[in-house]
Amino acid sequence: MIIVLKKDAAQDVIDHVVEKIKGTGLAVHISKGKERTIIGAIGDESLLSSIQLDALPGVENVMPILKPYKLVSREFRKEGTVIELGGIKIGDRDVMVIAGPCSVENKDSLIDTARKVQASGAKILRGGAFKPRTSPYDFQGLGFDGLKLLSEARKATGLPIISELMDPRDTETFCEYVDIVQIGARNMQNFRLLTEVGKIKKPVLLKRGLSATIKEFLMSAEYIAAQGNSQIILCERGIRTFETATRNTLDLSAVPVLKEETHLPVFVDPSHAVGRWALVAPLAKAAVAVGADGLMIEVHPDPENALCDGAQSLKPSKFAGLMEEVNKVAESIGRRI
Amino acid sequence: MIIVLKKDAAQDVIDHVVEKIKGTGLAVHISKGKERTIIGAIGDESLLSSIQLDALPGVENVMPILKPYKLVSREFRKEGTVIELGGIKIGDRDVMVIAGPCSVENKDSLIDTARKVQASGAKILRGGAFKPRTSPYDFQGLGFDGLKLLSEARKATGLPIISELMDPRDTETFCEYVDIVQIGARNMQNFRLLTEVGKIKKPVLLKRGLSATIKEFLMSAEYIAAQGNSQIILCERGIRTFETATRNTLDLSAVPVLKEETHLPVFVDPSHAVGRWALVAPLAKAAVAVGADGLMIEVHPDPENALCDGAQSLKPSKFAGLMEEVNKVAESIGRRI
Amino acid sequence: MIIVLKKDAAQDVIDHVVEKIKGTGLAVHISKGKERTIIGAIGDESLLSSIQLDALPGVENVMPILKPYKLVSREFRKEGTVIELGGIKIGDRDVMVIAGPCSVENKDSLIDTARKVQASGAKILRGGAFKPRTSPYDFQGLGFDGLKLLSEARKATGLPIISELMDPRDTETFCEYVDIVQIGARNMQNFRLLTEVGKIKKPVLLKRGLSATIKEFLMSAEYIAAQGNSQIILCERGIRTFETATRNTLDLSAVPVLKEETHLPVFVDPSHAVGRWALVAPLAKAAVAVGADGLMIEVHPDPENALCDGAQSLKPSKFAGLMEEVNKVAESIGRRI
Amino acid sequence: MIIVLKKDAAQDVIDHVVEKIKGTGLAVHISKGKERTIIGAIGDESLLSSIQLDALPGVENVMPILKPYKLVSREFRKEGTVIELGGIKIGDRDVMVIAGPCSVENKDSLIDTARKVQASGAKILRGGAFKPRTSPYDFQGLGFDGLKLLSEARKATGLPIISELMDPRDTETFCEYVDIVQIGARNMQNFRLLTEVGKIKKPVLLKRGLSATIKEFLMSAEYIAAQGNSQIILCERGIRTFETATRNTLDLSAVPVLKEETHLPVFVDPSHAVGRWALVAPLAKAAVAVGADGLMIEVHPDPENALCDGAQSLKPSKFAGLMEEVNKVAESIGRRI
Repeated sequence: MIIVLKKDAAQDVIDHVVEKIKGTGLAVHISKGKERTIIGAIGDESLLSSIQLDALPGVENVMPILKPYKLVSREFRKEGTVIELGGIKIGDRDVMVIAGPCSVENKDSLIDTARKVQASGAKILRGGAFKPRTSPYDFQGLGFDGLKLLSEARKATGLPIISELMDPRDTETFCEYVDIVQIGARNMQNFRLLTEVGKIKKPVLLKRGLSATIKEFLMSAEYIAAQGNSQIILCERGIRTFETATRNTLDLSAVPVLKEETHLPVFVDPSHAVGRWALVAPLAKAAVAVGADGLMIEVHPDPENALCDGAQSLKPSKFAGLMEEVNKVAESIGRRI
Repeated sequence: MIIVLKKDAAQDVIDHVVEKIKGTGLAVHISKGKERTIIGAIGDESLLSSIQLDALPGVENVMPILKPYKLVSREFRKEGTVIELGGIKIGDRDVMVIAGPCSVENKDSLIDTARKVQASGAKILRGGAFKPRTSPYDFQGLGFDGLKLLSEARKATGLPIISELMDPRDTETFCEYVDIVQIGARNMQNFRLLTEVGKIKKPVLLKRGLSATIKEFLMSAEYIAAQGNSQIILCERGIRTFETATRNTLDLSAVPVLKEETHLPVFVDPSHAVGRWALVAPLAKAAVAVGADGLMIEVHPDPENALCDGAQSLKPSKFAGLMEEVNKVAESIGRRI
Repeated sequence: MIIVLKKDAAQDVIDHVVEKIKGTGLAVHISKGKERTIIGAIGDESLLSSIQLDALPGVENVMPILKPYKLVSREFRKEGTVIELGGIKIGDRDVMVIAGPCSVENKDSLIDTARKVQASGAKILRGGAFKPRTSPYDFQGLGFDGLKLLSEARKATGLPIISELMDPRDTETFCEYVDIVQIGARNMQNFRLLTEVGKIKKPVLLKRGLSATIKEFLMSAEYIAAQGNSQIILCERGIRTFETATRNTLDLSAVPVLKEETHLPVFVDPSHAVGRWALVAPLAKAAVAVGADGLMIEVHPDPENALCDGAQSLKPSKFAGLMEEVNKVAESIGRRI
Repeated sequence: MIIVLKKDAAQDVIDHVVEKIKGTGLAVHISKGKERTIIGAIGDESLLSSIQLDALPGVENVMPILKPYKLVSREFRKEGTVIELGGIKIGDRDVMVIAGPCSVENKDSLIDTARKVQASGAKILRGGAFKPRTSPYDFQGLGFDGLKLLSEARKATGLPIISELMDPRDTETFCEYVDIVQIGARNMQNFRLLTEVGKIKKPVLLKRGLSATIKEFLMSAEYIAAQGNSQIILCERGIRTFETATRNTLDLSAVPVLKEETHLPVFVDPSHAVGRWALVAPLAKAAVAVGADGLMIEVHPDPENALCDGAQSLKPSKFAGLMEEVNKVAESIGRRI
């Protein structure tokens, strides 16, 4: 940690800051420049969270040197994490595709969709049972019945299933039904929920919040890891910007940045980011080209009669075409779907 | 709802959209322009949420005409909501000030702070018992012990108390202890939590999410109101923008916009928005000048030894000065603290 | 144009709006719903710019139906614009790569770089002669001497050259030296400069402004086209968001959106967007995968001794590797470098 | 400047960085922590702009300690700059109000408006002669004829006049006609234009760019000051965020931040920020309460027939009411209109 003091900070002010830092057990290094005195706190920066350095008199600026995340950092673990699930490996050479409807609606449609996305190469089935909707008057999902339908689809196809958990009270039931627990963008900083899924033995797919920095995203993953669960998949799904031509702005730069910073697998969800099915294929190809370990794509057999997010859902036939195209891009960089 | 069709949409495409809309019970109004055919769906727009208009073939754009919020809208209720609590009225002529420490730390310090902010004119005591922290390694609050200390401070001073609820499982206990339940910015779209506090009989202070539009903010209030609880206080606390000179950008335009759109009281929290105590006073004055019904301000007897957010906390003596200044501004617009 | 009136708008208010619209020569279509009266103005919406619809009493909202850009729109011209320059075709099947140093520094270094990027497959040489720098104390470029060095590099290699124009007074001289005139992000809404390059006979590469919407970006292209110059290349180069891990957020969704909306070629500059050379290659591959017609990449023989933007510059050897990788991705989607 | 090296940076890497820094004439201070080596460059940081520290091998992060602006900084000059113009003082105790129409339209209307805003207490007359419009098809202003009409209004009322300069070629003519030269938000980083107005002898009002950080805003002011013109007025006018309920988000926190950082007067333009006249009065009051030295407000005698921005223009009678209200707020903080 670097502490920059205000111009002309008096000696007693400097001494006070130094004493505070030493009180946490860290060593101190002082550098007096022409215009500013700078104090370096040397050692484990997390110990400094017990003191309020930026509230001390005479302090102009406090600049952390070390990353605040540990367990999820690439420094902590050099090789990428590979999550094995049934026969598949997430975070390995193959790009994994999660596909399925925005929300689970009924058994026949779900199993039909599952079979079709499986035939096109998807390895995991998605489907919302509990839906976070902006309006209380919109369809909120089938709830636990939705989870049951998903597990029937798994039985029919063998595909592992993923669904979004919104409430800590539902964690146990989710663990009975799903193979991967999803934490949605709006709950990325629902710290109680993160703590809860940190205690389970299943992989967690954590979506980036709409206005979360990459640092905050990794800190939320750290919440899960700190409880003992290191099977975490990160998923970029678009951030909120001033641009309104797409629903959100897919931040594909985040993928290589995350691959540098963390050993966790990184997925991309182009469907939610753009909000329009015609844009999903080009962005899926870009996501693979930039280095994503997996994709999450909405597929619905009859988008215009979907119960939610029809506009961004691909029909199974279009999804099949997308998978072929994406696979070619994957091969061009030495991977495959 | 206005549905704009793509250029050269054929008659069967138009018919299909019309039929879909009529199926929801709404009337249809068609207007053929030179370049585009436009369809108006006349009646209760919420019925249209059951169909995916933007997924229909030939649809270029769907533009809602009516506001999606009802119970919280100014159209629904012309006069402003006034919430009575003990002897005080929130949303009335007087500007209410909530003050207190970021987090509850110990009994003596809390009661001392409570007495001092009360002496300066604060009418409600704040204090965090459960703290949403970006890092799992930072102080997470005293939990239920914090709530107990708050209730002792209420006993000692008579001030009603407010604290943040983070977990639906804690709702009942919160209702025993606090007078106002706070929903924090990170949980503004934690819809399960909103539904839970919609069922209680206590006022709820709902903070705006870091990247929430005013429309989404009101939709979250609607979640609470839809469950039967209309004692809702909205609180602007800064939004996330590209600017880094302040922690967040306090959106004071939101205050008059909200006063137009909703009958609910609107508060402002300048402390969290700016993150530096020296900026709190000017922004508190601006918040009152722009029409806020209340302020929420962090006060700590010893900011440099606070357990969180010391940099943005005012000492009680500085808070007393702020209250005098703010009161003058309040009087200049015909209100008072 | 759709004009939504306030609830309970009286008949004389409606009449006044109708009369105003008719005064511009447009037809009017009135639709009275249960809660709102809506007026449609039918015909050329640009005529309405002469009246201030949103300033009329009783008007709640004004919603344009048609796109404000004409000459640059895909509706105006269905096939993509192909710009021929020397032997190359911009906007055709081949992905064109512009490469070279951030700023022109000296003859030997420039010609050396030009030869190397040419050997790797770059088709156009870039180099800044006038540099828009945030600080007045930073290196501002060699000015016209830089343009002369660029033209010597063209002579030596045959590569067409591009450089940024910052001042309308320099337009004539630029036209003597460069093959493509670049308008930088900070000047995207320098309307006088746009008007000036609208009058020249050379292609213009227009960079998207840091906070420009796609609509505004196209309106700036329309400024150029409206003066008669339709040889315009659009270039996405990152937008400003809250994320600070990369210098800007490269908006790759903008590429397919632009390809829908306009017939103009669309390029991507990953170097400026991310600000770090290690991220340039993955984002260059993503840009090609998403459908960009070209790339603009900074290459410097000795980044640590560059006069600007060293951190984002690739060494020629790394650039050669990038070109090979990018070419594979291009081939996977049926194009090539 | 603090240079953080990558973990395990070898000695020769450290030596290379040190040597580079010493080459600029600065001293070096090395601090080896447990996880990182940190190098402090001591002395005038601007000398480091000649080397590309972040392009050196082994460098993880470069953190400036000093502010990049000098002449405009509060450190450079402790007392606030007061600009005298005719009989008025800008940046002194009185809050100065600039008022007038968005664009100059005709003589009678302009003089009438000038008289009315003067009667209500405005001290400076605004009026656009050259209008930066998003669309090339919108009204672009009367040009030099507009400047002439403004100078006639000055003659009639004695009010000094301000108008926006868009093109360096017009600088001389502007200096003949106007008392204050305005640089608009879209030209905040038009460095050639800034350099040009840095050479004139008239005050310059510089508007903050839509996505400019406060630091960049001050650097643009530094461009002007570096040429010798220190009569600069800064004007906050709303920044671009995700919120669409107002045209832009007025960043009132910027006012006290700027008052800390610079000695220059700070104005606020609420009209352009919010885009709707009904919101102008509350934000004008907030701007004064937060500490603005002046306001810039659009007034038009007949907004619905204005040639631009009618929706945000106040009628003279409403402006008179606003001025009374704003004056009360000004008095409450010890100032006056």
